[in-house]
Amino acid sequence: MSPPETLPTIEPGWVWLVGAGPGDPGLLTLHGLNALRSADVVVYDALVDRRVLDLAGPEAERIFAGKRGGKPSPKQHDISQRLIALARDGRRVLRLKGGDPFVFGRGGEEALALVEAGIPFRVVPGVTSGIGGLAYAGIPATHRDVNAAVTFITGHSLTGAVPDGLDWPALARGAPVLVFYMAIKHLGEIVSKLTGAGRPPDDAVALISNATTEKQQVVVTRLDRAVEASRTVEPPALVVVGDVVRLRPALDWLGAMSGRTLEADPLGMRNQDEAV
Amino acid sequence: MSPPETLPTIEPGWVWLVGAGPGDPGLLTLHGLNALRSADVVVYDALVDRRVLDLAGPEAERIFAGKRGGKPSPKQHDISQRLIALARDGRRVLRLKGGDPFVFGRGGEEALALVEAGIPFRVVPGVTSGIGGLAYAGIPATHRDVNAAVTFITGHSLTGAVPDGLDWPALARGAPVLVFYMAIKHLGEIVSKLTGAGRPPDDAVALISNATTEKQQVVVTRLDRAVEASRTVEPPALVVVGDVVRLRPALDWLGAMSGRTLEADPLGMRNQDEAV
Repeated sequence: MSPPETLPTIEPGWVWLVGAGPGDPGLLTLHGLNALRSADVVVYDALVDRRVLDLAGPEAERIFAGKRGGKPSPKQHDISQRLIALARDGRRVLRLKGGDPFVFGRGGEEALALVEAGIPFRVVPGVTSGIGGLAYAGIPATHRDVNAAVTFITGHSLTGAVPDGLDWPALARGAPVLVFYMAIKHLGEIVSKLTGAGRPPDDAVALISNATTEKQQVVVTRLDRAVEASRTVEPPALVVVGDVVRLRPALDWLGAMSGRTLEADPLGMRNQDEAV
Repeated sequence: MSPPETLPTIEPGWVWLVGAGPGDPGLLTLHGLNALRSADVVVYDALVDRRVLDLAGPEAERIFAGKRGGKPSPKQHDISQRLIALARDGRRVLRLKGGDPFVFGRGGEEALALVEAGIPFRVVPGVTSGIGGLAYAGIPATHRDVNAAVTFITGHSLTGAVPDGLDWPALARGAPVLVFYMAIKHLGEIVSKLTGAGRPPDDAVALISNATTEKQQVVVTRLDRAVEASRTVEPPALVVVGDVVRLRPALDWLGAMSGRTLEADPLGMRNQDEAV
């Protein structure tokens, strides 16, 4: 036998908190595949790709725990209580989240509820969209001579506003590359904070929607034009700020598979707008 | 057929730049597994776990491209030229890197060399240790009410020194949680920069060595004792700074599998030293 068959599966009464990755089923981990194959019940979010969910067995119960069609999403407390009740029924419970459960995924809150209830659990990290989604747009999260640091920021807080309690001027100047999750709604305010703190108006920006899926859309622009450019972008989307964006004309391997000619020298490729 | 059998494999003359994840083979992606199963030749780094490398076919050639036993590592240029030569020979080439190829992995440099040589390539993101390794230590990279931003920083530059060209005061204050890769060697200088910029001396710190492997070691300490604590830690190690570290007594699910009792309320668990 070879993996994934030699790796663990969900035991009855356990909950596995699993990251499904950004979308492409090929970015699911082997632990994630085993979780889907062994689960009696899958509690999944709106950001989980349908092709990943389809890897669960046909007999597995599927419970949607996300926001759909403008209806309010289930309260976090209710989701946690549901997981606990399912585990207490002796089910093999898979809590499936887009990306990684601990990167703006509220996995820690659900895990704390499980601990309090005495439910055994396992965490299975996933490829986060801020890294894997960028890679599918031909944009490295870090690159030699460009950035020795990268910051990931959520574009909205639990109340739906731009997160407060952050030192925005320090954030803006700290890492040369900033990656925002779910930032389209508040992009105007975010751009103001960044330019107010000294990020140049012509800082390179990429907006990446539905990363790694067939609907992936990439718009390259600059900071002072980002809000205007975002009007053509369907949420959820990543917003990348910094010079790594300028590598896309060279490193868009996914575009190259569809016939795009890559530029060996990405310098001089500044400020061009494009949509894929 | 079901995945991974339905997903693509490496074609002759192609190079796949693949992230192996932090160590646990269960954190390899399905694309990564397919790459290992289809590769004629695997060019791998020192940080790739042996159990992941063992997933390559027995007939696949294995080429080590890392640093071993104090000998100088192959030059980046030489590695890139080797990849190009292998691809031009019509081989199915897997370039396997620890973690994610674009997170302090120099994947972008190798990809640029492939573009210049006209070699077709694909990038397969992996779970980065700064997220997945933390999760295996029971430390979420982000957590509600703790941090709406997290910064990843490499602990040394290409010259081996602490990276210059970074705005350290801004970095220190920007994100509430900082995750350093390969930072043990320069930890004293890093701690000085952070405390000098206003991070409190009792800021929570975790040192995580050999994350997700059987040799995983976690030491929880505070900023002003981190250098002392690091003397018991074997590189390579992650250094995490910030209040998410305080969640480990609750979220150490891996320790719980070995009999550790989890604390439902992680508050009040401050400044304790421990080794796992």
